[in-house]
Amino acid sequence: MTVGTDPPHASKIAVVGVGHVGATAAYALMLRALCHEIVLIDSDSALASAEAADLSDANALARPTRIRAGSFADAADAAIVVLTAGAASHGDQSRLSLATESAPIVTQCVRDLAAHGFGGILVVAANPVDLMTLLAIRHSKLERKRVVGTGTLLDTARIKQALGAQVAIAPSAIEAYVIGEHGDSEVPVFSTVRIGGQPIGRRVNRSQRNALAVGVRDAGYRIVEGKGFTSFGIATAIVRICEAILRDERSVLPVSSWVGKTYGPIDLCLSLPCVIGADGIKEILFPMLDDEEQVALVASAAQLADALAVLDRVV
Amino acid sequence: MTVGTDPPHASKIAVVGVGHVGATAAYALMLRALCHEIVLIDSDSALASAEAADLSDANALARPTRIRAGSFADAADAAIVVLTAGAASHGDQSRLSLATESAPIVTQCVRDLAAHGFGGILVVAANPVDLMTLLAIRHSKLERKRVVGTGTLLDTARIKQALGAQVAIAPSAIEAYVIGEHGDSEVPVFSTVRIGGQPIGRRVNRSQRNALAVGVRDAGYRIVEGKGFTSFGIATAIVRICEAILRDERSVLPVSSWVGKTYGPIDLCLSLPCVIGADGIKEILFPMLDDEEQVALVASAAQLADALAVLDRVV
Amino acid sequence: MTVGTDPPHASKIAVVGVGHVGATAAYALMLRALCHEIVLIDSDSALASAEAADLSDANALARPTRIRAGSFADAADAAIVVLTAGAASHGDQSRLSLATESAPIVTQCVRDLAAHGFGGILVVAANPVDLMTLLAIRHSKLERKRVVGTGTLLDTARIKQALGAQVAIAPSAIEAYVIGEHGDSEVPVFSTVRIGGQPIGRRVNRSQRNALAVGVRDAGYRIVEGKGFTSFGIATAIVRICEAILRDERSVLPVSSWVGKTYGPIDLCLSLPCVIGADGIKEILFPMLDDEEQVALVASAAQLADALAVLDRVV
Amino acid sequence: MTVGTDPPHASKIAVVGVGHVGATAAYALMLRALCHEIVLIDSDSALASAEAADLSDANALARPTRIRAGSFADAADAAIVVLTAGAASHGDQSRLSLATESAPIVTQCVRDLAAHGFGGILVVAANPVDLMTLLAIRHSKLERKRVVGTGTLLDTARIKQALGAQVAIAPSAIEAYVIGEHGDSEVPVFSTVRIGGQPIGRRVNRSQRNALAVGVRDAGYRIVEGKGFTSFGIATAIVRICEAILRDERSVLPVSSWVGKTYGPIDLCLSLPCVIGADGIKEILFPMLDDEEQVALVASAAQLADALAVLDRVV
Repeated sequence: MTVGTDPPHASKIAVVGVGHVGATAAYALMLRALCHEIVLIDSDSALASAEAADLSDANALARPTRIRAGSFADAADAAIVVLTAGAASHGDQSRLSLATESAPIVTQCVRDLAAHGFGGILVVAANPVDLMTLLAIRHSKLERKRVVGTGTLLDTARIKQALGAQVAIAPSAIEAYVIGEHGDSEVPVFSTVRIGGQPIGRRVNRSQRNALAVGVRDAGYRIVEGKGFTSFGIATAIVRICEAILRDERSVLPVSSWVGKTYGPIDLCLSLPCVIGADGIKEILFPMLDDEEQVALVASAAQLADALAVLDRVV
Repeated sequence: MTVGTDPPHASKIAVVGVGHVGATAAYALMLRALCHEIVLIDSDSALASAEAADLSDANALARPTRIRAGSFADAADAAIVVLTAGAASHGDQSRLSLATESAPIVTQCVRDLAAHGFGGILVVAANPVDLMTLLAIRHSKLERKRVVGTGTLLDTARIKQALGAQVAIAPSAIEAYVIGEHGDSEVPVFSTVRIGGQPIGRRVNRSQRNALAVGVRDAGYRIVEGKGFTSFGIATAIVRICEAILRDERSVLPVSSWVGKTYGPIDLCLSLPCVIGADGIKEILFPMLDDEEQVALVASAAQLADALAVLDRVV
Repeated sequence: MTVGTDPPHASKIAVVGVGHVGATAAYALMLRALCHEIVLIDSDSALASAEAADLSDANALARPTRIRAGSFADAADAAIVVLTAGAASHGDQSRLSLATESAPIVTQCVRDLAAHGFGGILVVAANPVDLMTLLAIRHSKLERKRVVGTGTLLDTARIKQALGAQVAIAPSAIEAYVIGEHGDSEVPVFSTVRIGGQPIGRRVNRSQRNALAVGVRDAGYRIVEGKGFTSFGIATAIVRICEAILRDERSVLPVSSWVGKTYGPIDLCLSLPCVIGADGIKEILFPMLDDEEQVALVASAAQLADALAVLDRVV
Repeated sequence: MTVGTDPPHASKIAVVGVGHVGATAAYALMLRALCHEIVLIDSDSALASAEAADLSDANALARPTRIRAGSFADAADAAIVVLTAGAASHGDQSRLSLATESAPIVTQCVRDLAAHGFGGILVVAANPVDLMTLLAIRHSKLERKRVVGTGTLLDTARIKQALGAQVAIAPSAIEAYVIGEHGDSEVPVFSTVRIGGQPIGRRVNRSQRNALAVGVRDAGYRIVEGKGFTSFGIATAIVRICEAILRDERSVLPVSSWVGKTYGPIDLCLSLPCVIGADGIKEILFPMLDDEEQVALVASAAQLADALAVLDRVV
């Protein structure tokens, strides 16, 4: 790689799909000063232009970031493309039920990126994210490790927040993971939770843990009920992943990635703690699970496999 | 104001009105780690709870901030209350036309704050912001300097962004101000613009300046046309003001404040560059204007005076 | 403590002792924009003034922070006092050997603070830090929880850095603690280390762990050998503690605090994971140790008790 | 440029010379999370290793940055090399008097970089910085615009700080420049100063301005007198320049750059407000000066020309 050419594109990020999630993610990328250029791409180009204008208005009040509406051609040399285009969930609709609606949108976007020779990292936030991450791998012509689904990073943030609130400790100080599907079959891994080197059992009993797990699983539904959509939580998860990639952090984040046939007879993507760096998924860490968690993880994978089989028949 | 109890509430901020602007401002406050507690207050308490939940989901991925829905009682000991409740603009509606709709909402919120003994700084973002800032001063029982309207801070950011784009220089490197009404009669002050110590005349001619002024004046309308509302720009302006207050910065920001009868026969609020610190408006700086700008500023004040007279008759 | 006057002093920090550690800590506090006022106090007032001037020179290039040289009277209403005054270590000198030299300096500074009615949080960084924290508690007239020693926070950062380098993972992604004395008898707690939910045993064998432990224990000596003193690591640890206090974070940090007679016949301070917030030590978390670690911790406490007995006889 | 290869080196910075300035600059780069790799290069390799170890100790408490000691070969693919190696000033010694001592050190370092094919941006902080920047251009084989001297950025920060203190306004809110030599002949440009659109004359009279100018000119001497060296101010100036380059900001900073024969018969580097971006100096802005300032600038250039003539005869 020849550096010193100008200007470098190492910190250009393209956001495909400028609904609430995409626009909010762009805003957070700007506030965190993570990149120097953001391109917004949407089939509604007037929307993309309006969001770019609204975001640019903040520019003189923050570290300068160039933000503009663009096309897939403008995404070709981006370091990261964030894919939020897809179906939006309504009411009690499960994420998996969105699959047939999201699949053709995601597939087309990824093919467009591939057609323009995109070679960066693809961060997939469209739901159902585990299946959409798999589709993205199929169609992107990228190495598998370069495709990262937001997965259970948001659910993990939620369980830390809920545990933290319960024990009056900062959520970031709590080591916890939710793994498996980003959806109804997700698996909170309580057996490995540590707070200041203590197992969680000393502070949170089994029925409290079950209540927390249900609360986290249904958190998205409750927010959609109150405000019609979710945006801030998932946008922040997207930005955290982008940060780990751009800074080659090698941080450990639970995200959806290719796990092949590890948990069943067909190739899948699902969430496990992953080491994230400049080339995407550097390593998958398989946490030590107790028997119950292991069973639940296999069941979550089976759920995803069933949904994928249905999707592959339809699309 | 009772701060200094343990834990200190010096960095508690309450946001009244949790529409797009209020929620986005809360998100930016959280990402910038400016305060350790944010209370969201809205007549739609389910909305406030849902936004608090969505924002809290981001908590484990950012510096910890406690975010919750609450009531005016919870705002009593806040360092800052941000008031975004009011009428939303649609289509080509001018900001002044919203006055009769916004006035009773703003008045009631401010009275509720006063009833609970709020003694911090009140940041008003409801439109038409210059009139609403005046109403807030009338009803808040606060010293006038403790009431700050977002005013033309956003317009100023826009003209810096537009000038910067034209001359290929970072917007933050351009010294420029828009003053007067935050609305159609606003006054861009080109005569004092400096870029690296150069007057603007060397780079941007008169017709270009006029085009820029029109573009800035109408920027809000264009964004509303494309996305239905504005959020990111104004939210960032709110956060910038809060930052200057919380950190007692003594920064110079063009915001709406009490100018009394300086520009006409009745008391008004309008925007001029102000020194902002822990106790709100520490000083108003009157920029050196050329004759044309001075005339335009007086005309802008007259426009506000007319609108205020109408409003005072109606409400 | 009278806070809440206008302007608020909730984010005023005083640094007592402006050697390499104190000055560097002040610089990091400024760069992180954690407080709006920093007072530097040193028996060499010309040095304090020069450091204040050098730091202030950076002010226009960072978020504004007022930095000045001052006296103990100026520290009275600070939210935090950072105490770095004390003996400097040279060559292979152990931290405990500095006790008789540091004790009168620390005692006098703390008495001066008490005489001026200081009621904030006292962060002690003078070595040997566990003994100096105890002396500070004795003489400060503060509740015990309001006195926090930097303790093994630095050693913990070092072991995370060393483990991270070995397994090619970001140090912040590794849950690990060093506890006990900040010094030669410190105890790295490998049994609770988790990386992505995995125990460390899968990746780092026993002899590697021993080498890491020795490396961490002797890291300070090696740096002193190369540059004559340590500054950046310990300054960052100080700033991290101040941040957790100022933002009432309730984060978990291994710091030195009052543990009474938990580990032996006399009252001691030593490091364990603690929940840190606006009022200092909110809670001590006792990590689950294996037998070997428990024995080592008791031995570390005994070492401190012996040193304290010597010190109490001398001073 | 092929992006998407891994890991990118776009944010690798090498610091040549790890005295107080170089080490402190590396620390600030780390705290600001500006780059993901920092290489420290010094003829005293034990010192470089010790500083790298001390800085790395802070790593687990900040955004991860890989910091290590290295050689000129490691700097070859850096985006930026910061050159601080050179003579240190003592007592009342003027910066120009250091020229003969610094020249061979700077020349050799720059030749070593060129020999390894360095093609990034070279930021020169060695004093006398205007002459050393010129030497660096001569020997680096880089385009002239890719060599940036820290110049009067520090003096400019100082005059903003001093003016701000006098008028009780944040230094960053004051538009002011010091230009010409970074040294005794520097020129504060009061005629273009604006505070909230007001000329400075309203607030600071002529004799106050003269006192400020003398204070700024001699600030470095006074700090050296008190603490033996300067570090925090100049380190922050270095980091600000690196930030503008890495983020392709197009910010306006007064830095030393090639001005050719603009101010006299021989080619020179001196400070004027410059637009800084990914490829270094994008544009020099010539501020509008009054007659007195113009004369002083020409005199400052003459001073530099004389010193250069002496240096070229000696070296």
